Amino acid sequence: MRLADAGDRVMGKLVAAYGPEGALGQVRRGCLDPVFVEELAAVKGRPLDVRRLLEAWRARLPATDPIADLTEGERLGARLIVPGDLEWPTQLDDLGSERPLGLWLHGDADLRFSCLRSVAVVGSRAATPYGAHVAAEFGAGLSEAGWTVISGGAYGVDAAAHRGALAGVAQTIAVLACGTDIAYPAANQDLFAAIRSRGVVVSECPLGVRPTRLRFLVRNRVIAALSRGTVVVEAALRSGALNTAGHAVTLRRHLAAVPGPVTSENSVGCHRLIRRSEAVCVTSAREVIELVGAIGDDLAPEPRGPVLPRDALDDETRRVLEAVPARAGSGPATIAVAAGVDLLTALSSLGALAAAGFVERADQGWRLRRPK
Amino acid sequence: MRLADAGDRVMGKLVAAYGPEGALGQVRRGCLDPVFVEELAAVKGRPLDVRRLLEAWRARLPATDPIADLTEGERLGARLIVPGDLEWPTQLDDLGSERPLGLWLHGDADLRFSCLRSVAVVGSRAATPYGAHVAAEFGAGLSEAGWTVISGGAYGVDAAAHRGALAGVAQTIAVLACGTDIAYPAANQDLFAAIRSRGVVVSECPLGVRPTRLRFLVRNRVIAALSRGTVVVEAALRSGALNTAGHAVTLRRHLAAVPGPVTSENSVGCHRLIRRSEAVCVTSAREVIELVGAIGDDLAPEPRGPVLPRDALDDETRRVLEAVPARAGSGPATIAVAAGVDLLTALSSLGALAAAGFVERADQGWRLRRPK
Repeated sequence: MRLADAGDRVMGKLVAAYGPEGALGQVRRGCLDPVFVEELAAVKGRPLDVRRLLEAWRARLPATDPIADLTEGERLGARLIVPGDLEWPTQLDDLGSERPLGLWLHGDADLRFSCLRSVAVVGSRAATPYGAHVAAEFGAGLSEAGWTVISGGAYGVDAAAHRGALAGVAQTIAVLACGTDIAYPAANQDLFAAIRSRGVVVSECPLGVRPTRLRFLVRNRVIAALSRGTVVVEAALRSGALNTAGHAVTLRRHLAAVPGPVTSENSVGCHRLIRRSEAVCVTSAREVIELVGAIGDDLAPEPRGPVLPRDALDDETRRVLEAVPARAGSGPATIAVAAGVDLLTALSSLGALAAAGFVERADQGWRLRRPK
Repeated sequence: MRLADAGDRVMGKLVAAYGPEGALGQVRRGCLDPVFVEELAAVKGRPLDVRRLLEAWRARLPATDPIADLTEGERLGARLIVPGDLEWPTQLDDLGSERPLGLWLHGDADLRFSCLRSVAVVGSRAATPYGAHVAAEFGAGLSEAGWTVISGGAYGVDAAAHRGALAGVAQTIAVLACGTDIAYPAANQDLFAAIRSRGVVVSECPLGVRPTRLRFLVRNRVIAALSRGTVVVEAALRSGALNTAGHAVTLRRHLAAVPGPVTSENSVGCHRLIRRSEAVCVTSAREVIELVGAIGDDLAPEPRGPVLPRDALDDETRRVLEAVPARAGSGPATIAVAAGVDLLTALSSLGALAAAGFVERADQGWRLRRPK
């Protein structure tokens, strides 16, 4: 994940074809499989500049140390999930070769289950008081009805939507354009802490990575893909929220927009979406739920204990499960040693076991989940 | 017109079948044609309470004096047009048996030509500052682009739309729910005077008739029918503007609504129209024109002189035309005497001649129009 930038499609295809270790091996050897290069060039209709690609990736090799990243993540309380993990939200597959290679998560909520009934609430950083008010109202209304709010971590609409959601009962998810250990903007530090305890902070950027303009845009596809639908609360004509809206349309998610005064620059983007029939006009959280809940309302029963029989688990995962203590939590490294697996496998298995309802996060690591 | 209330469908059908004089004769005799009664009952699927109808109409017979009305109208500067007159807007035929029996007009503009490129701008009497601002902006924008504004005469959106239109170059038309001689509300008296000099004040109520709640509702169908489309600027859920919007939909006119803050009760009606796809979301006068101008943009060349050859006029109308002086105006009564026709014919012919561009209103009556 440190080799290529988030959203790098060639790396995405490479990992899809050879797995992360196969891809890493090719980069280390400084030579891509010629069959892969040829097929990709055929799809793109022009030759691939392999030398330039490899140069860029290899320049990052010295800083690439997955084990160190995982250890550091564990120290900070963050975990890594990759496709195939039970906590992995499979709706991200809709992103095709732009699917994130993995996601860093920091927070108590289970990402996959939280996203089953979720709505992205996005809009201007420089929100008007009206936009901030509406974002908070929508966040609270969705959360009270048991819908997870997904947004970025910016000022304005993002922050207001999270604050509203925290006033309700459901999870709230912040998808950042930087490492989950970076509080950007710094003034939202307390907000991120609150989100970690009631939801989860998500990023495809490794720890320590700083936000850039491109990373914000690339991040938006994850917000759109995670949710069942996106609501644009306020957006000027050049707002990043319209970029998220575009992803929602491409991904065939629901798209809604909140109208506002026609005299407000910050509502011009919303009105354009409505006029072009790209977005449904919504004026309340109830109307959003009516829209996104229309199909599959019964898709997402709240998990109340293991949803998979123990016997359905594979050997490794069962070994990890047996290493998890019943009361006081253990850290993943301890569990890995007890189960006789490597740390990466332990982390991945723990995520899967948590998503399936066998284990839960405790203050000091993981413990068995008691049936409710 | 004094016998039955505006919008009385039975009277509408009676006049359609026997003409105004035939209808009046039947009411005077106290006996409706049995064939008519039977046919109407068959259409309605239930017998007609002829006795009750006649009683109501006949109770008004003593106050019904068309000649007195016309004389009084002439004294006040108002004129009566009926279907078939050249100034009659034939789009009113879309109202079927609810078509007005006639319209009283007071003002310098020609109703039919003014309405060819016209938009109704309607909304709450109790408009917010936002609604009044938007109504004025839309009125001005439409007027500057040469589009006539049609609205009622109420406070709030109606008045603001007219004021905006008066700031532009086009006509503005106020359709009242009372006689054109009644200033209701009284505080809009100056506004009505301004509209008379730059547009026309219209009513299907005879002179002296006071507004009632029912007359406002019945009036709304005329606003919707006269215009190519209706824009709802602000409307609470129980606003009369939504009644006008309903007529626009029934009449297959364009319908647009202006979004506003979702926190404003006065925009709830607009948002509902947009959400139900009954109205197009519009945020500027330009967008309204784009909507209503889409078909038939070239329908309405500005009249620049007679549009009918003199030879195409019927004998009576030609006689009236020959009685109209070239410079100083003559009143209709003088012209009627000079032409050897009755006053009603003279008035009707003068309307037709004005609409066709032969004559124009002068300070003291009518005169020939000089070619431009």
